[in-house]
Amino acid sequence: MHTIRTDWPLRFHIDQSYGQLMVRFVNVHHLARWAGDAGLESLLQELTVEMAAQFRRWPQFDKTPRVASHSTHGVIELMPTSDGVTYGFKFVNGHPINSTRGLQTVTAFGALADVETGYPILISEMTILTALRTAATSAMAATVLAPPDASTMAMIGSGAQGEFQALAFRTTLGINTLRVFDVDPAAMQKFERNATSLGFDVTLCDDAEHAITGAQIITTCTADKRNATILTDEMVERSRAGGGPGLHINAIGGDCPGKTELDIELVKRGSVFVEYPEQSFIEGEIQFLPHDWPVTELWRVLTGEATGRSHPDELTIFDSVGFAIEDFTALTFLNRRLDGTDYYDEIDLVAEPVDPKNLFGLVDARRPATVG
Amino acid sequence: MHTIRTDWPLRFHIDQSYGQLMVRFVNVHHLARWAGDAGLESLLQELTVEMAAQFRRWPQFDKTPRVASHSTHGVIELMPTSDGVTYGFKFVNGHPINSTRGLQTVTAFGALADVETGYPILISEMTILTALRTAATSAMAATVLAPPDASTMAMIGSGAQGEFQALAFRTTLGINTLRVFDVDPAAMQKFERNATSLGFDVTLCDDAEHAITGAQIITTCTADKRNATILTDEMVERSRAGGGPGLHINAIGGDCPGKTELDIELVKRGSVFVEYPEQSFIEGEIQFLPHDWPVTELWRVLTGEATGRSHPDELTIFDSVGFAIEDFTALTFLNRRLDGTDYYDEIDLVAEPVDPKNLFGLVDARRPATVG
Repeated sequence: MHTIRTDWPLRFHIDQSYGQLMVRFVNVHHLARWAGDAGLESLLQELTVEMAAQFRRWPQFDKTPRVASHSTHGVIELMPTSDGVTYGFKFVNGHPINSTRGLQTVTAFGALADVETGYPILISEMTILTALRTAATSAMAATVLAPPDASTMAMIGSGAQGEFQALAFRTTLGINTLRVFDVDPAAMQKFERNATSLGFDVTLCDDAEHAITGAQIITTCTADKRNATILTDEMVERSRAGGGPGLHINAIGGDCPGKTELDIELVKRGSVFVEYPEQSFIEGEIQFLPHDWPVTELWRVLTGEATGRSHPDELTIFDSVGFAIEDFTALTFLNRRLDGTDYYDEIDLVAEPVDPKNLFGLVDARRPATVG
Repeated sequence: MHTIRTDWPLRFHIDQSYGQLMVRFVNVHHLARWAGDAGLESLLQELTVEMAAQFRRWPQFDKTPRVASHSTHGVIELMPTSDGVTYGFKFVNGHPINSTRGLQTVTAFGALADVETGYPILISEMTILTALRTAATSAMAATVLAPPDASTMAMIGSGAQGEFQALAFRTTLGINTLRVFDVDPAAMQKFERNATSLGFDVTLCDDAEHAITGAQIITTCTADKRNATILTDEMVERSRAGGGPGLHINAIGGDCPGKTELDIELVKRGSVFVEYPEQSFIEGEIQFLPHDWPVTELWRVLTGEATGRSHPDELTIFDSVGFAIEDFTALTFLNRRLDGTDYYDEIDLVAEPVDPKNLFGLVDARRPATVG
């Protein structure tokens, strides 16, 4: 019998028959089934609204740049945050080489814990969940940054994130016309097949410049672990001269030291918006700019403290690297939605002896000994 | 059918029938059964040897102070490290208040990942495993720091860690006589019952000074989240004057900013050994000393680069705060021992579409679309 006092809000389930506090575990099949049953578009819409609500209370979160461990072929990172009630973190890797091995470039899992007790309450796969939260964050940023008349999005890179980005932009901004370029023809064909069947108007393009022609939004999402120049300043200026100056660049692939996507002259020309400057100046497109370069924190735009797009002709750039609060948002959103469903298992992750000071008794079951 | 290339060392199991890479999961019952079946004393002996081997290759590890999130009642930390082949991290909380709630003060879980691919390979409970690795680290330090004739250990604090410490010191140094004090009488009685049945000669004491009388080793392991003074300089000097000057203090409870156990004058008097100075000057007993205070890194003693105990009459202090390499050691030791056993389950944690760029296809199962 457990002697756990419950005069504080208990946030985990005690399985009395099993004699253990249980932690929720969401595996890949659970998550895919949950997202598929809910419908990706409505899920992305709700998550985008939730994301904006969390960004608006940004100052309430514990914030720290993620902790990265770099190796020859990739990086492994931990991304923690807390709002004082709930703590969350994500484990995530980035290995561009993996796609040549039949493996995911990015895989992730994460956890939530109760700040009051320090006990974990949820562990979840986050490979799919990261794609959802990244798309929701991009769409949220575009609602305050994209030109008001935007109808066409160019997508440079059409890999694992592509369909999620497209669906989030359609559900949030009504974008249905996509101009796509990827260096991997198979990735373009995969995207065209999926997106066409989702009702998008898709044009495959021969190169990046062709793709951005006539687009009011450009999403760059490539995976090379190096300083690539997916878009040059000249390329973008030619496009703006031809198709209209108002443009929003949603740059999500440059997210590591030494991994950028945009010509630095292009970055300098635009109004740059970031998640968390302390991390973005390490990892983002702005990593080669002086650390006092003027950038606007996105959360300040969402609260109304700062201006987003100030003119229809402006060039805005969301230099997205991904921040822990976005993962926290996805995990807490998921956890709330799990209530009353079977989209999770319960696992026995926390050792819980009847007497908390008799941890030894759990192991040495041959000599059970407990305090009165 | 999976198209994963395996021309690099594959470190996870592909369940072809399930169509997924599988990650090992060790729950509390698995871990307790593994440790109980192996026998705690022989397990601690082997883990102590393994710990020393890992400390001797200290320079090969990625090292960073742990990332802590502090709250009113406790702290939640992430402790990552990597040796370039395997990456490991631990999630751990410290909530002294929990023992009044019938909960563990410290709970933990952790994971290993493959650096080459970034893929997770193991998730394990680490509440029990942390007790094992802490005890093994303490015993390892004592082998190079304790007076050669040590036969009696004082234990100030006899909570969840107590029995593990006692067993590690017996199996490694032959210590069988214990003098115990804890502010909680129930914790002392629990310890006496467990330790007596394990064959220890146990004396319960009225206070800390009584406990340390005649001891050559003092282990302090208390949980208050504040600057407590469990041992004063005067108290220890009186004991050394009476029972002999050679003394080793194994200080494991002071492990947070603002959480110490020893009188600072006592710390200044001793020769101080630490795991990782960058973390110890934030969290350890030395947090109030100038950052150029002379301390010796334990790994240098184990490689022979630095001297451990230099004189039988010396006062040595292991200012232990716990470092990521210790958790890495415990996790890799466990993972190796799991081979060919049933002390784990396999879980579906990593999304693995047939085409790695078609993550969308996993969710939108109604419209399967794959490349080639």
